[in-house]
Amino acid sequence: MTVLEELTQILEQRKNDDPESSYVASLYADGLNKILEKVGEEATEVLIAAKDVGTESSDAAKQHLTDEVADLWFHSMVLLAHLDLNAQQVLDVLQVRFGTSGLVEKANRDA
Amino acid sequence: MTVLEELTQILEQRKNDDPESSYVASLYADGLNKILEKVGEEATEVLIAAKDVGTESSDAAKQHLTDEVADLWFHSMVLLAHLDLNAQQVLDVLQVRFGTSGLVEKANRDA
Amino acid sequence: MTVLEELTQILEQRKNDDPESSYVASLYADGLNKILEKVGEEATEVLIAAKDVGTESSDAAKQHLTDEVADLWFHSMVLLAHLDLNAQQVLDVLQVRFGTSGLVEKANRDA
Amino acid sequence: MTVLEELTQILEQRKNDDPESSYVASLYADGLNKILEKVGEEATEVLIAAKDVGTESSDAAKQHLTDEVADLWFHSMVLLAHLDLNAQQVLDVLQVRFGTSGLVEKANRDA
Repeated sequence: MTVLEELTQILEQRKNDDPESSYVASLYADGLNKILEKVGEEATEVLIAAKDVGTESSDAAKQHLTDEVADLWFHSMVLLAHLDLNAQQVLDVLQVRFGTSGLVEKANRDA
Repeated sequence: MTVLEELTQILEQRKNDDPESSYVASLYADGLNKILEKVGEEATEVLIAAKDVGTESSDAAKQHLTDEVADLWFHSMVLLAHLDLNAQQVLDVLQVRFGTSGLVEKANRDA
Repeated sequence: MTVLEELTQILEQRKNDDPESSYVASLYADGLNKILEKVGEEATEVLIAAKDVGTESSDAAKQHLTDEVADLWFHSMVLLAHLDLNAQQVLDVLQVRFGTSGLVEKANRDA
Repeated sequence: MTVLEELTQILEQRKNDDPESSYVASLYADGLNKILEKVGEEATEVLIAAKDVGTESSDAAKQHLTDEVADLWFHSMVLLAHLDLNAQQVLDVLQVRFGTSGLVEKANRDA
């Protein structure tokens, strides 16, 4: 099982949890607007961290950016779960667009 | 190979391409600020699409949100590739935080 | 008349215009989501331009940031106009919070 | 004196204050990245509040959006002050673009 599959399972399980028992359960209880605030915050932090890597490409700056992208993807997955969607559906879109079975690669093979 | 692994390979290959030959190659050539503008645009579109699902949870609205999250993740991966990082490093962060070998689940098992 | 008052008048006048006759009229016709995409884009560009000033505080970088903040405020005002609100109402909020007749300053005088 | 002029004065005065004495002084002390996180957060909250007005155009929803735009403009002004810029320079840009002495109106008068 991939980490995104594991995480999808965990996010589903949290739907039954007491809002005070976990961070994810508290986000679900706070509702869509609060989850979207977190997505917006994490997107902002990705932009800032990426500019810092652009200026000084240290290992610490790169690790910080990697952590912020993880936060952004994680909160995207909380959003998806809250709206009864999941990461696999996002990966399916990427597969169609970019996978070797997808249109881009098909176009490349045809060319 | 997972779709994120395939996409990581494609993004690396595009680094050698003529900027006029593909969208990704043109983003690399435009540089960090242009890539970040795209990340910011896609994050905005995720927020808008998610609010539309919150208001009217139709299949079309849900598919639109899924597409926008795919755009956001895709452009995050272009950003990572441009700065010599990759999706696996993001997944590793998520694995440590949330995987069954990770701290959260370990804490749960211990509790 | 201040520039924000002039701009408020212009934004009201544009509501009667043919969508093809001006940029603002075209934004109104495109609707709320398109206007919000522009607000999100301009906010992103403010972040990027501000990080560039932080790195290299040249006159050109500062002018670029000033231009981007102007774009952000302008599109905020298009948003307000589209939803039958206006800049004066925003300034009234700031006046209550920060003006010499406002609570903060009153607190300061009392202290 | 307009509220933006008053606020500009207050933001300058805060530069000499102890970081623990006021919210603005604490933002200056935290530095550019923290100020930009606030700008990004407020932009996100404007998007969410505007979508809520689009769905249910109540007085409460409109007041909430007005408050969020005020927060966005306020934190934009903190950003400008931190980088030795100010609101008047932003208004000057808007004046050139949209004021009656500006190009757009000149074009209108000529037409």
